[in-house]
Amino acid sequence: MYPLLSDLRVVECASFIAGPSCALHLGQLGARVIRIDPIGGGMDFNRWPVSAQGRSLYWEGLNKGKRSVAIDLGRPEGRQLAVDLITAPGPDAGLFVTNYPKQGFLSHEALSRVRPDLITVRVLGWRDGAPAVDYTVNAAIGVPMMTGSSRNGEEPVNHVLPAWDLMTGAYAAFALLAAERQRLRTGRGQEVSVPLSDVALASLAHTGQVAETLTAGDRPRHGNALFGAFGRDFATADGARVMVVAITGRQWTGLVAALGLQAPVAALESTLGVSFTADEGQRFVHREALFPLVERAIGALNLEQARHQFEAHGVLWSTYQTLRQALETDPRLSLSAPLFEPLDHPSGLRYPAAGAAASFHGEQREPVLRAPVLGEHTDEVLAEVLSLSSARIGELHDAGIIASAQG
Amino acid sequence: MYPLLSDLRVVECASFIAGPSCALHLGQLGARVIRIDPIGGGMDFNRWPVSAQGRSLYWEGLNKGKRSVAIDLGRPEGRQLAVDLITAPGPDAGLFVTNYPKQGFLSHEALSRVRPDLITVRVLGWRDGAPAVDYTVNAAIGVPMMTGSSRNGEEPVNHVLPAWDLMTGAYAAFALLAAERQRLRTGRGQEVSVPLSDVALASLAHTGQVAETLTAGDRPRHGNALFGAFGRDFATADGARVMVVAITGRQWTGLVAALGLQAPVAALESTLGVSFTADEGQRFVHREALFPLVERAIGALNLEQARHQFEAHGVLWSTYQTLRQALETDPRLSLSAPLFEPLDHPSGLRYPAAGAAASFHGEQREPVLRAPVLGEHTDEVLAEVLSLSSARIGELHDAGIIASAQG
Repeated sequence: MYPLLSDLRVVECASFIAGPSCALHLGQLGARVIRIDPIGGGMDFNRWPVSAQGRSLYWEGLNKGKRSVAIDLGRPEGRQLAVDLITAPGPDAGLFVTNYPKQGFLSHEALSRVRPDLITVRVLGWRDGAPAVDYTVNAAIGVPMMTGSSRNGEEPVNHVLPAWDLMTGAYAAFALLAAERQRLRTGRGQEVSVPLSDVALASLAHTGQVAETLTAGDRPRHGNALFGAFGRDFATADGARVMVVAITGRQWTGLVAALGLQAPVAALESTLGVSFTADEGQRFVHREALFPLVERAIGALNLEQARHQFEAHGVLWSTYQTLRQALETDPRLSLSAPLFEPLDHPSGLRYPAAGAAASFHGEQREPVLRAPVLGEHTDEVLAEVLSLSSARIGELHDAGIIASAQG
Repeated sequence: MYPLLSDLRVVECASFIAGPSCALHLGQLGARVIRIDPIGGGMDFNRWPVSAQGRSLYWEGLNKGKRSVAIDLGRPEGRQLAVDLITAPGPDAGLFVTNYPKQGFLSHEALSRVRPDLITVRVLGWRDGAPAVDYTVNAAIGVPMMTGSSRNGEEPVNHVLPAWDLMTGAYAAFALLAAERQRLRTGRGQEVSVPLSDVALASLAHTGQVAETLTAGDRPRHGNALFGAFGRDFATADGARVMVVAITGRQWTGLVAALGLQAPVAALESTLGVSFTADEGQRFVHREALFPLVERAIGALNLEQARHQFEAHGVLWSTYQTLRQALETDPRLSLSAPLFEPLDHPSGLRYPAAGAAASFHGEQREPVLRAPVLGEHTDEVLAEVLSLSSARIGELHDAGIIASAQG
């Protein structure tokens, strides 16, 4: 955690990845985040992965450092409390992150009647507000039809990484800060919509893939080959697998030198009348001629020999590892400080938790904070933000409008 | 484009996706971005996809709306010009986005001696600054070993989406605004490092997957099955493929009702002694029992019948489409305004270009701006930012230190 945004207070009513990770990112740069959930937990409260005891590791990963308030949002009195928290006064409050539907009591229109300078960042599925999740957006946008080997024929290959969700969370945090910066200057709030589908479509457009598709048709499956330059997985003599990439000319000449392939590559260039060094695209066009050369050369080395050669020649490469191998053996991905910190989590498990992925070299990195127990801060937040008395908080408990952490 | 950040000026010396997309996002929310490239273009100038004439659609997608300055960065005089541009005075300047190495003339240490309040956002591959790209980070972190069918055995399945690059670009834009907000209050600049590898590792940690791996081991390949709830691809009677997801209880009961599966699902629940409605995880545990029921039910419907049933019952689903099908036929992913706008690009092609993926409802969406031709704004920027005279600019041209757009 970094104390950059410590004067900001954000209220989150959201579930799953995009909305909660937006608020997580803000919190990890110092914003004080209040997460409001229905009593008993929201739609993501039991989302897998879970511990052996069934506690969600997902929920406790995405809600680190937030304060948790549990309210019965099905009743008018509970809804009013949520509205009061979202619209509470203060120049650095009035920041609301949600993936609740556009209509209803959490609509920006209704909330901004109470606090006109409210900023609402609303994550949507489709741009018209219709529900979608990462996996349905991804099916619709064509990535599963480009993934994997052509042996898959017409069968889609789903991604396992919720890439659009993750990207949307980060982009939404950026959008919120941009809107808040504007509010500092003008005093105006507004609603900001961030649809997963627009994030996906804009991403494919920004990287040229929409233009490619419109002008040249769909990109076919290329298996593990890197599109447009040299790259693929290769096996070493001792059965390790490595990903090797050469996009720049220097990466290419380094790879050729590392594998002692100068002569056969030069012969191939001469036959084909191309320069693989000067034109990265030719390495892709002629990949079926190049791959066997590299395959044989890497296949003749064991992993340690390949590592030695690659490092001596500045080759861009990595072994393939499972996540467990990465965490246990790869110093580049170790869970040591400062990014990670071992914590006791609400699941009862102790494991390293991640802080902000960025390092701010002018700030002190502060401890990573665990996720709350559901409702852990209900009383504290209602007293602090809404100045409710203990008596009033007791009444709300008795009426079942709010709940505290269950032991 | 939105005019939210129009008082900010950002200088970019970067290539590929993460750094350039960070500056693109800032530019699409109004920041004035100057991109500095070597004469002849940087490492990404010819990156695929390319037009039939070999012009990079990737480059012109990632550099929309930026001003392009071409400088010989191999010579001291050219390097000094770059340093002057990066460190030029002004309260809203002094923002630098780069993926150049930490050492050298573009190090934050060197630059901040000239402008102490400079903010440098540096995208790294590995956290120690060693080179890596999306595809090598992804191989190292284990995602290719979880992707696709178990038929792939030990063979990795690379992703085709540069997800870590895209995520890093968005997160870096967020980090820059957080640092700039801090500078507004304290006057202090700083360097911010954003390693692809830390973004990847933190993302897997935030979503519970690091904890899962540490406590339960590596997640095996689950093919197209959604992890931890109900979801998979299914074929309709007329050969369409649909992705169907049910995470919440309501999504599940909607799906069961849409397919008329109440009786067989209830029988299965009774046999197994579980409630699929109450416990999403049981739908995953018993997926091999559930999938055939849903397979048969969807396989008996043609796509239009399935669509009708799904829409009537609020099922979370999508057809699988290729990107071209999506762009040409799916209104949810159409290239119509306001997100997209047809433009003439430097490649000579005319196609719709994407603006900001977020919609700011309190602002006017301004036109999407095309990418520059390399060096298009060299003279203009040197005159405006560094107050160089035409005579001096002419000398720099004559000495080959700078270049303008080639016709």
